[in-house]
Amino acid sequence: MRIGCIGTGKMGAPIAHNLMKGGHEVLIYKRGTSGTASPAVENNGSVTNLIGDLASCEVVFTCLPLPQDVMTLMGGPQGLLSQMKAEAIYVDLSTIDPQTSHFLEDTAAQYGIGFLQCTLGKTPAHAERAEEPLFIGGNRECFERLSDLWPVIGAPAHYLGSVDAACAVKLVSNMIGMSNLVVLSEGLHILQQAGLDTEKAVELLQDTGACSFQMDVRGPWIAAGDYEKRFGLDLALKDVRLGCEMAEAWGMDVSTMRTVLEIFKKASAQGHGEEDCCGVHHIIS
Amino acid sequence: MRIGCIGTGKMGAPIAHNLMKGGHEVLIYKRGTSGTASPAVENNGSVTNLIGDLASCEVVFTCLPLPQDVMTLMGGPQGLLSQMKAEAIYVDLSTIDPQTSHFLEDTAAQYGIGFLQCTLGKTPAHAERAEEPLFIGGNRECFERLSDLWPVIGAPAHYLGSVDAACAVKLVSNMIGMSNLVVLSEGLHILQQAGLDTEKAVELLQDTGACSFQMDVRGPWIAAGDYEKRFGLDLALKDVRLGCEMAEAWGMDVSTMRTVLEIFKKASAQGHGEEDCCGVHHIIS
Repeated sequence: MRIGCIGTGKMGAPIAHNLMKGGHEVLIYKRGTSGTASPAVENNGSVTNLIGDLASCEVVFTCLPLPQDVMTLMGGPQGLLSQMKAEAIYVDLSTIDPQTSHFLEDTAAQYGIGFLQCTLGKTPAHAERAEEPLFIGGNRECFERLSDLWPVIGAPAHYLGSVDAACAVKLVSNMIGMSNLVVLSEGLHILQQAGLDTEKAVELLQDTGACSFQMDVRGPWIAAGDYEKRFGLDLALKDVRLGCEMAEAWGMDVSTMRTVLEIFKKASAQGHGEEDCCGVHHIIS
Repeated sequence: MRIGCIGTGKMGAPIAHNLMKGGHEVLIYKRGTSGTASPAVENNGSVTNLIGDLASCEVVFTCLPLPQDVMTLMGGPQGLLSQMKAEAIYVDLSTIDPQTSHFLEDTAAQYGIGFLQCTLGKTPAHAERAEEPLFIGGNRECFERLSDLWPVIGAPAHYLGSVDAACAVKLVSNMIGMSNLVVLSEGLHILQQAGLDTEKAVELLQDTGACSFQMDVRGPWIAAGDYEKRFGLDLALKDVRLGCEMAEAWGMDVSTMRTVLEIFKKASAQGHGEEDCCGVHHIIS
């Protein structure tokens, strides 16, 4: 199958690589020096800096940081959707909001193209091992047409019905994870005040009802003062913001998550946006 | 060893039972019909409704719901501390604030009694198996004098230095756990709005960076509409309140936890105090 990949960053690159290893002909679109695709990925696929070259692909994947990145490249009047073949399928792997996802679905439909929103549940390391949980919404027939492709990308592949559900699971997952991280940080600050070493505090808390994925992964980084970007703070801020906007648009009051959003905004404003999301620890006191 | 036990509720009862099984002579103080001690516990230990009967014990444990319960029974002018033998040791197992703990420590010292604050990291089920992590603060010599007793009660026994640290680890553990619970609830409400069944939503989120002890334990209860009290909402509210007051007294701003406190207050005010703490799910919308 001839597959186009747009966005070969931390998540997109291993997925493109999996598709190549799966025997597919992969064409990568790359703007200038953007993307962090490894030489292995680029050497095994074809690379172009003309997005129109992907118009002949049967399937196109995007994996981009922001909704507006996806909109610009795919949805606009000159976007790739307007150039793709009818009957092709476009799959967005990005963490975006339901509104943008609906726009892409509607635009694709105008051109006779199938659209699927497929969000990714775990980390780039899981993507490398094709162990990324896939949360998929959109046209069921398109989902089934790609049934051979899903196991190449990740597993398990959950078909959730609407694009709303696919967007929401991912946004909510990140909202909960980032909220768990913020309360962990608040707790560690209190325990430091109580005279406990942070490394010891993490170890003690892990053995209680306070434990979480974020505590296990990021607790030791906070204790070691290691804020090197894995999941960047500004990207986390974007997800919490999109999630809160989504909840608000649906008439919901998620006051804890809104408080967490304010903390992320403050951390970004104070210059921690390019650190790992656990950089919120700097601004809590 | 002759040991007094005050407070034989969900946590106190299995610990008293462990002490009996460990071959100690256990004297239980019971007010009227309070406490939920099983017949097994009461039949194997002696029970009295005169607190003064415990004055001859070498070690006294309290495991009570509120700081004021501990203060009244132990710290007041007629409290047990004023009647105990010098050289005895008093251990409080309750989840209380550092200020009350210091008061007990100082009062005990006036009577030549050693004081230890020993908070409990996990659940009554862990207490039954003597697998309760113990967070212990106070006089180190007293801690060492009881070295044979700790494994009977729980494990591992962490000596943390000050009573502040022992109180704070437990309060922070519950604050983080209850905050993780509230954000889980907010997230599940959003996903319901997105059309996802709550049981399915919990299953999907468990396979992401959102997962936590609270999600694993209470997610399925929320999905099943099962709010039967295990860790009661009003008790959880008390812990989050004490924890926020502690942080405030130490000049800290823990805005996420304060938001969680307001949600617990609202849930209690709306009549959910006697449900399990996951009853907060009722009032989030």
